[in-house]
Amino acid sequence: MSSDDDASAVAGTTPEVARTPLTATLENGLTIVYEAMPWLPSVSATLVLPFGSVSDPEGFEGAATVLHEWMQRGAGDLDSRALSDALEDLGVRRGGGSSRESSSLTASFLASELEAVMPLFASMVTSPRLDDAEFEAARELAVQELESLDDSPAQRLFDELLAAFVASPQGRSPYGTAEGLAALTPALVREEARRNLRPTGAVLALAGGADWDRVLAAAREAFGGWQGDGVNLPGVQVGKPGRRHVVADSAQVQIGLAFPGPKPGTDEAYVHNVALNVLSGSMGSRLFTEVREKRGLVYSVSAFFRTLRGFGYTVGYAGTTPERADETLAVFLAELERLSEGVTAEELERAKTGMLSALVMQGESSSATAGRLAADVFNLGRARTLQEITAKVEAVTVEDVNEYVATHRLPEPTIVTLGPARVAAGVAQ
Amino acid sequence: MSSDDDASAVAGTTPEVARTPLTATLENGLTIVYEAMPWLPSVSATLVLPFGSVSDPEGFEGAATVLHEWMQRGAGDLDSRALSDALEDLGVRRGGGSSRESSSLTASFLASELEAVMPLFASMVTSPRLDDAEFEAARELAVQELESLDDSPAQRLFDELLAAFVASPQGRSPYGTAEGLAALTPALVREEARRNLRPTGAVLALAGGADWDRVLAAAREAFGGWQGDGVNLPGVQVGKPGRRHVVADSAQVQIGLAFPGPKPGTDEAYVHNVALNVLSGSMGSRLFTEVREKRGLVYSVSAFFRTLRGFGYTVGYAGTTPERADETLAVFLAELERLSEGVTAEELERAKTGMLSALVMQGESSSATAGRLAADVFNLGRARTLQEITAKVEAVTVEDVNEYVATHRLPEPTIVTLGPARVAAGVAQ
Repeated sequence: MSSDDDASAVAGTTPEVARTPLTATLENGLTIVYEAMPWLPSVSATLVLPFGSVSDPEGFEGAATVLHEWMQRGAGDLDSRALSDALEDLGVRRGGGSSRESSSLTASFLASELEAVMPLFASMVTSPRLDDAEFEAARELAVQELESLDDSPAQRLFDELLAAFVASPQGRSPYGTAEGLAALTPALVREEARRNLRPTGAVLALAGGADWDRVLAAAREAFGGWQGDGVNLPGVQVGKPGRRHVVADSAQVQIGLAFPGPKPGTDEAYVHNVALNVLSGSMGSRLFTEVREKRGLVYSVSAFFRTLRGFGYTVGYAGTTPERADETLAVFLAELERLSEGVTAEELERAKTGMLSALVMQGESSSATAGRLAADVFNLGRARTLQEITAKVEAVTVEDVNEYVATHRLPEPTIVTLGPARVAAGVAQ
Repeated sequence: MSSDDDASAVAGTTPEVARTPLTATLENGLTIVYEAMPWLPSVSATLVLPFGSVSDPEGFEGAATVLHEWMQRGAGDLDSRALSDALEDLGVRRGGGSSRESSSLTASFLASELEAVMPLFASMVTSPRLDDAEFEAARELAVQELESLDDSPAQRLFDELLAAFVASPQGRSPYGTAEGLAALTPALVREEARRNLRPTGAVLALAGGADWDRVLAAAREAFGGWQGDGVNLPGVQVGKPGRRHVVADSAQVQIGLAFPGPKPGTDEAYVHNVALNVLSGSMGSRLFTEVREKRGLVYSVSAFFRTLRGFGYTVGYAGTTPERADETLAVFLAELERLSEGVTAEELERAKTGMLSALVMQGESSSATAGRLAADVFNLGRARTLQEITAKVEAVTVEDVNEYVATHRLPEPTIVTLGPARVAAGVAQ
C-alpha cells in the first residue's frame, strides 16, 4: 500500500548552513558531541552505551535488553513511576533500545527544559535503582518481545541472517534467547550494570536549539560524577558464506543476503554507498525496477549498507511469495553481479542527487541529527560535519565507481531464506 | 526492544512562532493550503484525493489501490521509467498510499526545485498514462501486499476490527480482496480514474521554505488545467457492537477494540483526546502502567483517537500471549471504565504537557506539517492554525474532562481478537 522511498543514504545534513559538531570529553571519559540548530525550539539527546547482545555473558543471552529496560525503572530518589512522571511533567519524549553492540536512551524536549531534563536523563545510567520489585516485569517484557518475533517474519529473517553472517558475538540476537532470559537473576543483571553502565566509551550526542555553553554545562553537571571504566567490545568476525533455509510458519518467503566491506567512513565506503544507491535506494533504482516494476516479483526489495563498530557490510532483502522466491533471488544476485559492469553517468548523478536530498531532509530533524552524531562517534570515533559528508558524496565520480566495482567483485554472500518448508528445495539448496 | 513513546496527540505546532496556513481554492475546485517554514531548505507536498476502498465498485474491491499504483507509472509524455527518473533527477523523495476514504501522493524536495517538481507531481493525477503494459505489474503488487498481510497479524487485526466496527463501505480493507483484485481490468480501473482523479474535493497541502506567491503560482500552473467533478463519499455508519475472534496462525494474540465519537475538531474532541492521553499516549499513562509495567501482560498496548471524514472513533490495541489475552482485555476494559471516575489535576497536566510537546516536535518537520494541513482540510473542511490547536489543548481543564467522562460513559465497544483457535473460548466468547 505504502510506497515510501526507503533510501539508505548517510544521515542528516543541511549543506546551505555551516553546521559544525562541537565535541568535548569529560574527565571520566564520556564523549559529548553537539550540533546547534538554533532555529529549533527543541533539543534531542541520544546517549549510547557500549553494551548489547555482544557483551551478554555466555548462557545469559538477553541480559543487555533486560538491563536496558530495568535501568529505566527508577533512579536516584525516584521509583519507576516517579521517574516516569518527572520526565513527562517536563514534556520529554523518550525512546531508545538495546541492540547488538550498543544500547541507547533518547529524549526530545523543549530547549528551555534542558537543565531540568539532563539530571533525570543521566540518572538512569549513573544511579539506576534496579529494584528487585521491577526485575520480573522487565524480564517478562523481554520474553514477550522475543516471542512476538514469531509473528514478525522479516525481523526474524534479519536475526537469522546476522547469526549466519557474523561469527563473533555480534551475531547474537538483540532479543536474547528463551534459555538465556530464563536464567537471569537480579544479581546477575546488577553485575552487568556494574560492568556496562560506565562513561568510558559512552557517547552523549545532542542537537537542537540551545547554545554549546549551556549544553556542555548541563551535561557536565549531570554526568560529571559518573565513574568507571568501560568494557572492550570484541572485533567483528565474519562466518563462512553459505545458504540456509529457516522453516517458518509464514505465508511469504523472506530472502536476506549479506556480504562484508568496506570499512565505514573511508573513501571506499562513500564510493560503495553511491554504487549501492544506483542498485537500490529509490523507485528508479535497478533493483526496484528489475525486480518489482518489470517483473512484479516482490512486495519489498532493497539493498543497504550497515555498520557495526569499525565494520561495514551490505544487506539485501526481498519479501515475496513461495512461487517467486527462486526467481527473485536469482534476479537479485544477477543485479548485484551486473554492478561490476559499471554504472552510467546518468545513474550516478541520480543516485547522488537522491543521497544529497535525503541528507538535507534528515538534517532538518534534531533527533535524526543527534542519532547521526552518536552513530558517527560510536562507529567511526569522530563526528563528521555535514559539509564533509556532502562533499564526499559530491566528489564521487563515475570513474571512481566504475573502477571500484570492476576491482571489487561481489564477495560470496551469506544467504538466508525464511518461509514455508516447501520452498526449501528451491531457494535454500 | 524499542520503547518509542507513541503519543497520539494532535499533529504539529510551534507555539512560539505565528504560523498561519494560507488557503486558496482554484477555479476547478482544488483546495491549496500552505504553511511557510522559512528556515527550512525543503518543501513537502501532500496531495489527497477523495477515493479509496470506500469508493471501489462492488465486486472490484482493490480498484483504488491498483489505480493509486498504476497512475504513478507514467504520465503525460513520460513513460513509467522516464517519470521516475525525472523526479529522481530533481532529488524528490516520494511516498503516499491508498486508504479507506482517500489516496495520497507525497513529495519532499529542495525549495529551489519547486517550479520543476510541481508539473511532474501534478501529471500523475492530471494526465496519467495508465498504459496497458503497466497494469498487470500494478495489480500483481496489490495482490502481493494483500497476501503479505498473512504475515502481519497486527495489520490484519486492524482490518478485521474496522470491518466489524464500520457498517458503511469505509469498513472495507484498503488492500482489497483477492476476488476483487482478480476481477479488475484495465478498462474498469481507467473508468475509476475518470471518476476519481478530479480536482473537486481534492486537497494540495504544502509546507516549507518557499513563499506563498511562488507556491500558489507553481500550483496554479501545474493543476489549473485539471477538470472534473468529484465523487461524493457516503457517510460513516457504525455496525452493531459485539465480539469476534479471528482464527489466525499466529503465536501471539492481537486484541483490538473500537467505539465511536466525538466528532473531530469539536471542543468535545479536544476534551476526549486529553482524557485519552491520560489513559494512553505515554509511558506513565494509565494503560501502560497498569497493563504493561505492573502486570507485564503485553508487549504493546495503546489507545488512540482516529478520524474518518467528519467521524471520530477511539481504537484500543494490545498484543500479548494467548495465556494473558483474557486478563489483558479485562484490565483494558476496566481502565476504560475507570476513566469515568475522573482524572487528577496532575494526570491532566502531564497529558497536556505531553501533547503540547509532541505538537512542537512534529511541527518542526515540513512533511508532518503538510500531512497535518491536508488531513485538516480533508476531514474538518479547514486547516487549523497551530495556535488554535495549542490554545484548545491548553484550555482543557480538569473540570472539563471530569464532567465529560462522567456524562459520556463508554459506549459498548466492538472487540475483535486475532490469534490461535485455542483462545477462542476465552477472549472471544
